[in-house]
Amino acid sequence: MRVTLGADGASTTRRPDTLAVEEPLEIRVANASVTVTMRTPGDDFDLTLGWLVTEGMLEDAGQVRQLMHCLDEDESGAPTYNVVDVTLTEGARLDTTRAQRSTYTSSACGVCGKTSIDAITARSRYAVSADPVRLSPEVLLGLPDALRSRQEVFDRTGGLHAAGLFTATGDALVVREDVGRHNAVDKVVGWAAREGRLPLAGHVLAVSGRASFELVQKAVMAGIPALVAVSAPSSLAVELAQASGLTLAAFTRSPRMTLYSGAERVVAQ
Amino acid sequence: MRVTLGADGASTTRRPDTLAVEEPLEIRVANASVTVTMRTPGDDFDLTLGWLVTEGMLEDAGQVRQLMHCLDEDESGAPTYNVVDVTLTEGARLDTTRAQRSTYTSSACGVCGKTSIDAITARSRYAVSADPVRLSPEVLLGLPDALRSRQEVFDRTGGLHAAGLFTATGDALVVREDVGRHNAVDKVVGWAAREGRLPLAGHVLAVSGRASFELVQKAVMAGIPALVAVSAPSSLAVELAQASGLTLAAFTRSPRMTLYSGAERVVAQ
Repeated sequence: MRVTLGADGASTTRRPDTLAVEEPLEIRVANASVTVTMRTPGDDFDLTLGWLVTEGMLEDAGQVRQLMHCLDEDESGAPTYNVVDVTLTEGARLDTTRAQRSTYTSSACGVCGKTSIDAITARSRYAVSADPVRLSPEVLLGLPDALRSRQEVFDRTGGLHAAGLFTATGDALVVREDVGRHNAVDKVVGWAAREGRLPLAGHVLAVSGRASFELVQKAVMAGIPALVAVSAPSSLAVELAQASGLTLAAFTRSPRMTLYSGAERVVAQ
Repeated sequence: MRVTLGADGASTTRRPDTLAVEEPLEIRVANASVTVTMRTPGDDFDLTLGWLVTEGMLEDAGQVRQLMHCLDEDESGAPTYNVVDVTLTEGARLDTTRAQRSTYTSSACGVCGKTSIDAITARSRYAVSADPVRLSPEVLLGLPDALRSRQEVFDRTGGLHAAGLFTATGDALVVREDVGRHNAVDKVVGWAAREGRLPLAGHVLAVSGRASFELVQKAVMAGIPALVAVSAPSSLAVELAQASGLTLAAFTRSPRMTLYSGAERVVAQ
């Protein structure tokens, strides 16, 4: 039950509410904990795969033999599904040398935007800058609405971010929602990994809200050459996009958007 | 330079842009790396103090002898300020047993909302539930506008979140902006720690955007009894607020807001 109050202090409505669900997910590889993320349950295997790929630890889903939920029970005895354990194929290993933390801090007293960008460009397996795809402004401008129209949960809760993968002609392949925008992107990339579609050359990733360094990183690590955001980009997102040759459109609100990087890919067709 | 494109593909404007700055900050304690966060530079010492307090590692600023920026240089030879090193007072130690990761996973295969909530309630040094403060609906409903009017950088970039600390009568004590909402909250809590104001009994924290588990956690860890968010809360944010006795208002858009927890504190005055 929730209470809605007006300025007069009176309780004006009292009704059950639908909330965006947030629960922790622990990712384990061979029973060793790798990370805990706060996410919206659902597509947990894709989230796991996508996170491992976009953090540079895994090349593709072919290195994974099995994904399973560890079953646990909550207080009432109901099963919870908040731990995913990954079993790798024989001979496959997590590339933890590429993991973020270790490469952020390469010099004695040095972490800065430059080292963060260098870490991603060194880790990335795909040359996004060489992607020859051309994209029309009409298609890019239409993506926020296409994304929004596929957000099933947002309308009920107002609390979920979305990420969607589109073809160069604007067809939606997959849209995912999550309390964390980075999780929504990982679910999209994990779906693609599971479908054997990596790298995602020629595709466009669209996200609700802002474009941060982390989201550009995830696009680059999945080989996606273009990212469309509804709101503002950060300085480091723009710098990483420029260094990687990724097309970055932000403030994408038809009939206008702003291209911060890779504008040469965007041509009227 | 940025390029703004309309649907016809024509470049309609070409002008320098102001971007929300995002840079990594590494926090070290006694020269050992503790975390790296992507933040907007500025108030880095407060961010460091606030993060250590809201993660439960530090009790208050009295345990800190010195905060200093490690000086490094970027490619052009300009100094960067992206590492803060913390020196504790003699005898003071980081309480890493209270750190998040270790307490998330308390059982063999168990991480869930319940364990996350238990971890926070076990770590919290302050009994927010016992705070006798009473808050008027008018004051709470006015906080989003009060916060917004003090956001200096958002207007130029559209890219920053804000957090503000207010008295029970709605007076703003400090407002901070950052690309990460959690960082903005840490900067506010760090300011209060530096001023010797912890715990923040009787105060209200207001945040732009949504209320996540993490933000409720930070409020509780700083002893703040009320959190006002402009947008939606998550399920786990509501559960933690209820378990901690924190007053949580969300969808706070005058003349309406919704109280998800601690409604007994909100009374017309």
